[in-house]
Parts: sequence; C-alpha cells; structure tokens
Amino acid sequence: MSSTATCDVGLIGLGVMGRNLILNMADHGFEVAVYNRTTSVTDRFIDTHGSDPFPSGGGILACRTLQELVTAVTSPRVVVILVNAGPAVDMVCEQLIQAGAGPETIAVDGGNSLFTDTIRRERDYRGRLTFFGSGISGGEMGARFGPSLMPGGAPEAWARLRPIWEAIAAKVDPTTGTPIEDAAPGRPVTGGEPCAAYIGPDGAGHYVKMVHNGIEYADMQLIGEAYHLLRTLTGHRPSEIGDLFAEFNRGELESFLIQITADILRQSDPVTGAPLVDVILDSTGMKGTGTWTATNALQLGSPAVSIVEAVFARAMSAAKEERVIASKLLAGPAANGATGDEQIVEAIGDALYCAKICVYAQGFALMRAGQAAYGWTLDFGSIARIWRGGCIIRAVFLHKITEAYLRQPGLANLLLDTYFAGEIASRQSNWRTAVAKAATIGVPCPALASTLAYYDGYRCPVLPAALLQAQRDFFGAHTFQRLDEPTDKWFHIDWSDPRRPQVEVPP
Amino acid sequence: MSSTATCDVGLIGLGVMGRNLILNMADHGFEVAVYNRTTSVTDRFIDTHGSDPFPSGGGILACRTLQELVTAVTSPRVVVILVNAGPAVDMVCEQLIQAGAGPETIAVDGGNSLFTDTIRRERDYRGRLTFFGSGISGGEMGARFGPSLMPGGAPEAWARLRPIWEAIAAKVDPTTGTPIEDAAPGRPVTGGEPCAAYIGPDGAGHYVKMVHNGIEYADMQLIGEAYHLLRTLTGHRPSEIGDLFAEFNRGELESFLIQITADILRQSDPVTGAPLVDVILDSTGMKGTGTWTATNALQLGSPAVSIVEAVFARAMSAAKEERVIASKLLAGPAANGATGDEQIVEAIGDALYCAKICVYAQGFALMRAGQAAYGWTLDFGSIARIWRGGCIIRAVFLHKITEAYLRQPGLANLLLDTYFAGEIASRQSNWRTAVAKAATIGVPCPALASTLAYYDGYRCPVLPAALLQAQRDFFGAHTFQRLDEPTDKWFHIDWSDPRRPQVEVPP
Repeated sequence: MSSTATCDVGLIGLGVMGRNLILNMADHGFEVAVYNRTTSVTDRFIDTHGSDPFPSGGGILACRTLQELVTAVTSPRVVVILVNAGPAVDMVCEQLIQAGAGPETIAVDGGNSLFTDTIRRERDYRGRLTFFGSGISGGEMGARFGPSLMPGGAPEAWARLRPIWEAIAAKVDPTTGTPIEDAAPGRPVTGGEPCAAYIGPDGAGHYVKMVHNGIEYADMQLIGEAYHLLRTLTGHRPSEIGDLFAEFNRGELESFLIQITADILRQSDPVTGAPLVDVILDSTGMKGTGTWTATNALQLGSPAVSIVEAVFARAMSAAKEERVIASKLLAGPAANGATGDEQIVEAIGDALYCAKICVYAQGFALMRAGQAAYGWTLDFGSIARIWRGGCIIRAVFLHKITEAYLRQPGLANLLLDTYFAGEIASRQSNWRTAVAKAATIGVPCPALASTLAYYDGYRCPVLPAALLQAQRDFFGAHTFQRLDEPTDKWFHIDWSDPRRPQVEVPP
Repeated sequence: MSSTATCDVGLIGLGVMGRNLILNMADHGFEVAVYNRTTSVTDRFIDTHGSDPFPSGGGILACRTLQELVTAVTSPRVVVILVNAGPAVDMVCEQLIQAGAGPETIAVDGGNSLFTDTIRRERDYRGRLTFFGSGISGGEMGARFGPSLMPGGAPEAWARLRPIWEAIAAKVDPTTGTPIEDAAPGRPVTGGEPCAAYIGPDGAGHYVKMVHNGIEYADMQLIGEAYHLLRTLTGHRPSEIGDLFAEFNRGELESFLIQITADILRQSDPVTGAPLVDVILDSTGMKGTGTWTATNALQLGSPAVSIVEAVFARAMSAAKEERVIASKLLAGPAANGATGDEQIVEAIGDALYCAKICVYAQGFALMRAGQAAYGWTLDFGSIARIWRGGCIIRAVFLHKITEAYLRQPGLANLLLDTYFAGEIASRQSNWRTAVAKAATIGVPCPALASTLAYYDGYRCPVLPAALLQAQRDFFGAHTFQRLDEPTDKWFHIDWSDPRRPQVEVPP
C-alpha cells in the first residue's frame, strides 16, 4: 500500500453496485482506491478481482482505512459513495472529513438518496466537503457495463467528475439512438454518446433519478396490465404472449423492459417446468422511490396519475390474502373469458404505446414543475438523451423526446409536440377499445384507464370543475371565478337565498 | 367586564367559523368568552350579536386580552382555538400559557391542522397546557347550526369538553339515520344522536377529519364526472340534469352533496341568466387537506386511488389555458355527442353509487392503516355515525356503514361486508357500461374509471404482479417469492443464463 496519491478515484461501499462500478472504472483505465467498512468484504473482492487484467491500464487498490483511501486518491479528490441511502451517507461523509478529506474533496453520493436530503447535504457540508449527488440507473448490469448517470451539484465538481462519469456511462449511437453493447468485460465501448450529462445544482440529479424511477414504475405497470389483458382476451399461454411482446419490441415500443418481458414470459420454471410467471407470487415489492415521485407530484400539484396508480397497484398486489378472500365475495361481469379476437392484440399494443407516451409526458411535466419549485434549469432534451442507454427505462422512443425538446425547448407538455400528438391520434381509438374492454370484462387496468382519463382530461377545454367550484362556494363560501371576468376576480352567491345578487369578494 | 370566572368556555379567533360556533354555543345555553387578536373584529361581532336573545340562557362576553379570557372561563378551562392551521396555532398556545392558562386548561384546536402537528403539540405542551385537537366539519352553516365533530386527545379532556361538543353538534334521528334540522336560530334541536364522538388520543381526531376531507374530494369528483357524462350523453340542459340529481337524491345516493348539486345545476346566473354552471370558471381550488390524505395513503401504502385521482383532477382543472391549447391539438374519438339513450342515466347513477361505496371503502381502509401506524384504536362504526349529520359528506348511506361495522368490527374492507358487496353486485354491470362509454366517447372520468379498476383489482385473486416481480429480479436481483413456497423464502434466477438453477437467497 503506497503512501503517495496514485489513484484517480475512490469508492466507498462494496455492495454489488459498488463492486460493479469499480470494475467498470478499472475497465476504462482508472486506478480505483476502494474501501468497505467491513474489511473482509474488501479482502473477498480483492481475492476475486485483484489480479484481473485491465488492458486499458486501470487497477484496484484496497484500502483498510478511510485515511488510506484519502491519501491514495490524487487531488482534487473524487470519492464515490455507494452505501444505503439515509443516515449511512452522512456517517460516511463525517468519517471522510475526519479522515482528512477537505473541502476540495468531491464526495459523490451514487445511491438512491431523496433529493431533499441531497439539497440539504450539499449545503450542510459546504466548506468541509464538496457534496455531490448522482443518480445511477441500470441495476447491477448497468453499473458493470455502462449505467445512465444523472449528476447534480456544483459545476466545478462536475468538471472534475466528468471524464470518469462519461467514460463509464452507457454509450448510444448518436444517429440511431440505440445503445452500443460492450464487446466483453475489459473491452469497453469506445465512441458513442455517453449517457451522462450534468443535470443541475444540489439535488437536481437525484430528483431526475427519482422521476426516472417513477416512470419505471408506470412503465412496468402498463406492461403488466397489457399482459393481463392479452392473456385474458386471447387465451394464449405465457410463452405465446412472450412472442407477442417480442413482436412489440420490433416496433415503436422497442425497449429494455419490453424485451425482458418477452424473455420472462417465455421462461419456464426450473423447478416445475410450468411457465415461470405462473409460479411467482403476484405481490410486487417496492423500495420507495416510486412513492417519493408520487408524493412529490402531489406536493407540486402535477398530475402524474399513472405513476401514482402504479405505486398503488403494487400496494394492491401486496394484499394477496385479502384479494383471494374478496375474489370469492365480489361479483364480476358475466363474460370475462377469451374472445378469440386477434385484433385485440393490436389494440392492446397501441394502448400500451399511447399510455407510455402519456406517462413520459407526466414525468417530464413533473420535472418541469420541479425545476420551478427548486430553482433549477433542466435540459429535458439532454435528460431524455442520457436515458436512451444504460437505465431500466431505456428505449428507442426516448430519442423522439429529445427531438421534441430540440424543436421546442420550452414545451409545456410532451403531448403538445406534433410528433407525439400524431402518434396518439392514429392509435387512440384502439386505446379506447382496450380500456373499454378491460372495464367490461373486469380485468383491472388502473394505469391504462387512468392514463386515458389523463389524456382526455388534458384535451378537454371545459371540465366539470365549474360544478365543484359552485359546490365549494355553496358549503364553504370558497368563492368562484367567472369565464366572462378576469381570473383575479372572485365571486360569491348567498346560496341560502340565491335570488340575491352575486357579490364580488376581495381576494 | 367581570374579574371572576363566569363563562363555560372560551373561544379565540373570530373568523366566520369562530363566530358561528360562538352563536351555536350560546344558543345551547353556554356563556362564551371570546377573543380576537384584532380588537375591532371583536367589537364588530359584539355590535352585531351582543344583544341577541339566547332563550336557553347562553351569552357572549367580549375579552380585550387573553388574560381577560383566561380569567373569565371557569376551571378546568376549555378554550376553543379557531385560527389558521399552522404557526398561528402555536403562537396562540404560547400566548395562552403566558396569559396564565395552566396545564389544566384544555386548548381545543378546531382548525384543519395536520394530524402530525397535533400529535407533536399534544406532546410538546404537556405540563403547560392540555392540547386537544378536534376536527370540525360542515362549513359555515355546520358551525352555526350543528357541525360534525371529531375530537382527539386525552380522555379526561374529552370528559370536560363533551357536554359542550355534544350540545352543539348536529343531531341525527337514531332510527332513520337522517339529520334533524334546527327549527331556527336560538331554537336548537333537542334530542337525537349528536354527531360528536371521541375518536382517540393525540392526532386521531384531526386524522379522521383529514380522511373525511379526502373522501369529500372523491365524492365531489365522482359527481362532477357523472354530471359531465350525463350532459354529454343525454344532451340535456344543466337544469334538467339538476332534476336527474334530485331524482338520485330520492334513492340510495341521498346526501347533502347530491342535493346541492341538484340545486346548483338548476340555478341561473344572476348576471347573464345562463345556467350558472356554464359561467363559472372550470378550475377548482383546493386548500390542501385532500393532498394530505393522498400523501398519507401513499406513505401507508393504502390504495386510496379515488382520492388521489380527485386531487389530481383539481390540478388538471387548474391548467385551464394549457387544456384549451391541447384541445385544439389532441385527437379525440369520432363519436362523442349525445346518444339519446335514456338507459344511460340509470347506468351513470349506478356507477356513481358503486364508486361511492368504493371511495368509502378506501377511506375506511386508510383509517385502518392509520390506526395501526399511529397506535390508535378507532371505532369505525362510530366514525360513520358522526358523519351522518353536520358534515359535507353527510349521507343516509353512512348509516349502512355503521351497521356493517356493528356486524363485523374487525372488517378489513367495507367491500367484504355482505350488504355492500350485494349493492355493487346488482349494479356493477351498469358501472362497467358507464366507464366503457366514457372511454369510448372521450369524457374524462378518472375517478369513476380508477375506482372500477380498484374494485376489479381487489377482487382479482391473481394480478400480473408476478411479471413485475420477475422484471425486478431480472434487472435488479430483487428476488421473488413462489406460490408453492412459504412467503418468507426468496428466490433468484441468473437471467444472463436462465438454464442455471434457481437459487434461494437469504432475506
């Protein structure tokens, strides 16, 4: 162990994400100083990977203490922290400071931290440590061979982190917008656009990662509903529905999630030989980022209905025992079997695509509300660009979002872009068919249905909200505005005697 | 102004709710000491009401200082606080303490405080003041002639407050479950069951009031959607649809909100003579309690989808300008006009009723999750009972909820009660018709549609969540459970080579 600084970067926390990110960095020629609280974990990692050949000149240096790590990394130091989101992040930061990391040390929190924690930390550590937050998406494989990276913090810190982050990020073919796969470990992609771009100050990176996860929840739920509808309406076996998803994956739905859905549905259970999807318990877990996104949407009054429905659908799935009891007590429609109607396959594919567009519209509208609320200036085209590769929601489709924001950087909602409006226009009739069918045959499609209501609400020039305004004035004297008066004028009617004249009420 | 204690109760904050509550208390024979920060407000109130005759012996005593108020109220003192929820409540409490109110003084916060604030205050003021929280519903008229009261705090404090609260609360005929109207001001109802019952310790009262408001949001939204559908599908004028709501109000939907909807829809604009609902701006405001309920449902993982959809529908209504632009760009279905089909009226009425049952099921399930999370024991039958009169969501229907909880106090969900299951069973086909129709003709019905998906999700023994579990294991190694293994066993498949055996993973 050397006492002089030789390493390009440090990494704390050797969980699966940390280990894979280290190997990714070493693959790209970086010398990485690594540390884990439990030394045996470090030892095991070095036993396995300490003598890996890194053709591009990278390497791994095991550190037994944080002092060793601080000493080993060249200044200005970049130290990536990959520990559990929450108090552990603050603990590591305080320990780093005690170990001699000064204000010039850039501590990059790569976990799924709540963006408000990142805002607080960036402020609280100022002068003692340069705290920097970065969303990392792509799971284990992304970390190993190219994640999507959403960095947020001081621009000077980004300048220092940038070469590392751009090197290890997933790469996308700039012309086609499709991800470029690594040839093999140690033989990383060269060229291509990196899926890493500066998002904004303090919590902006973690915020965008949070919204990414919310979109991921909705995407997955929509796929689940489409599968449920396809299975009920066509009567096909899971593997056959897998083939239908493989077919979807050759069109505008082409994406990682559609592709793995095809793989999963064609997969047999290694134990029983039955379709795997039929032996897995239908209770979906969650780790909280979807709930954060939903809560944030409520706080900002940005109607991300599909994300909320996806979160609640997971909660509903978790109530397995209650559902089994309810299924015996609650009436459903008379007809709920297969129709043998193959046109419904196309309708469901179209429904999935239309709803997906609206989910992204909601997600980007939420980020637009977020930038206003938290004082950031987000580049939505760039965000869509770095989501094209590496992350769970990677999809060809994101290229079109980037194009939309290039056409109109100030776009209020993706649905107002002519390309997306046109995509839905030609398919909305099929979407309606699928949603109406689901309601009729009793297949729960909360996200598909709610997203259609979102679309119809957004394109509705006159909502029944006038009635609600009147109700609120009736029982609570909350006043109302008039269509034929400026919106800063408020009126009240004495409902106990509505013949009395309407009065204007000072705000 | 006397220097000896002669008053039964004090009240701080002479806004409309405070003023009406004072008159209500005086009507019922209580001597009320009143105080407002701005003395001119107190003077104006006394000018107007100081010489009102209160046949039952009540009266009003104006206080210029909080010391005067503290001195005027007999011990153990009850002081009702009706100021804006938030920091003002703490300010008044501190001022009360400075004015000589000791730990035996019961400070009853009657505002719409967030229940977690009430939990905190109950604890923080202990030893200096007995802080007590009470939800008050019913708006101005409720406060004046009988609100629904949801008190929460120490049982000993409730014992002292109870005679006042039960006297001023709305009264319900115990046999029919319908509210008894006051004959006139000063001639209050005697007899009947009071709409006031102890909810539980610390924040329980404000929590239940919050859920009440969430249900109110959903109830109003469902009515708005039913109106929108009726208007589009029948082509009737608002006043004619008002007649339809008056008809609904003679059946199982009988309730305050349906009744005022009928009144409003029949109402002409005093300015233009047009239907009033057609001149009011279709942007609904909100004061935050619906958002609190929705956020709480997310935090507790209790799928109150209809409440969230109602909150977001208000947010969508507020985006008036964007909607008008979108309406010109986004395609809708070819057929969206009136059908002349009168059977649809019955279908929409049934849809409204079925969805309403599910909204209450969601609200009560949320309170069930809340009691577990916050350590309360709530009496759900009693909560339904005190909502039968006085409050905005008062409805004959609530009597049936009380009966359901009398049959099964531990009921996990209202839908599992045979009465409600039966009510929906006979109408669900019509509900499906209405939701399918809305999807087909493009009328946004987020709450009606999402609530149907809730119903269908709840009665679905096998949801597509197995696919989502597999997806999560595929990209994040999140593991899954199996239907044929105990749920405490977790499994993982190496998806890069799924021929490898599935492995069991320690939790």
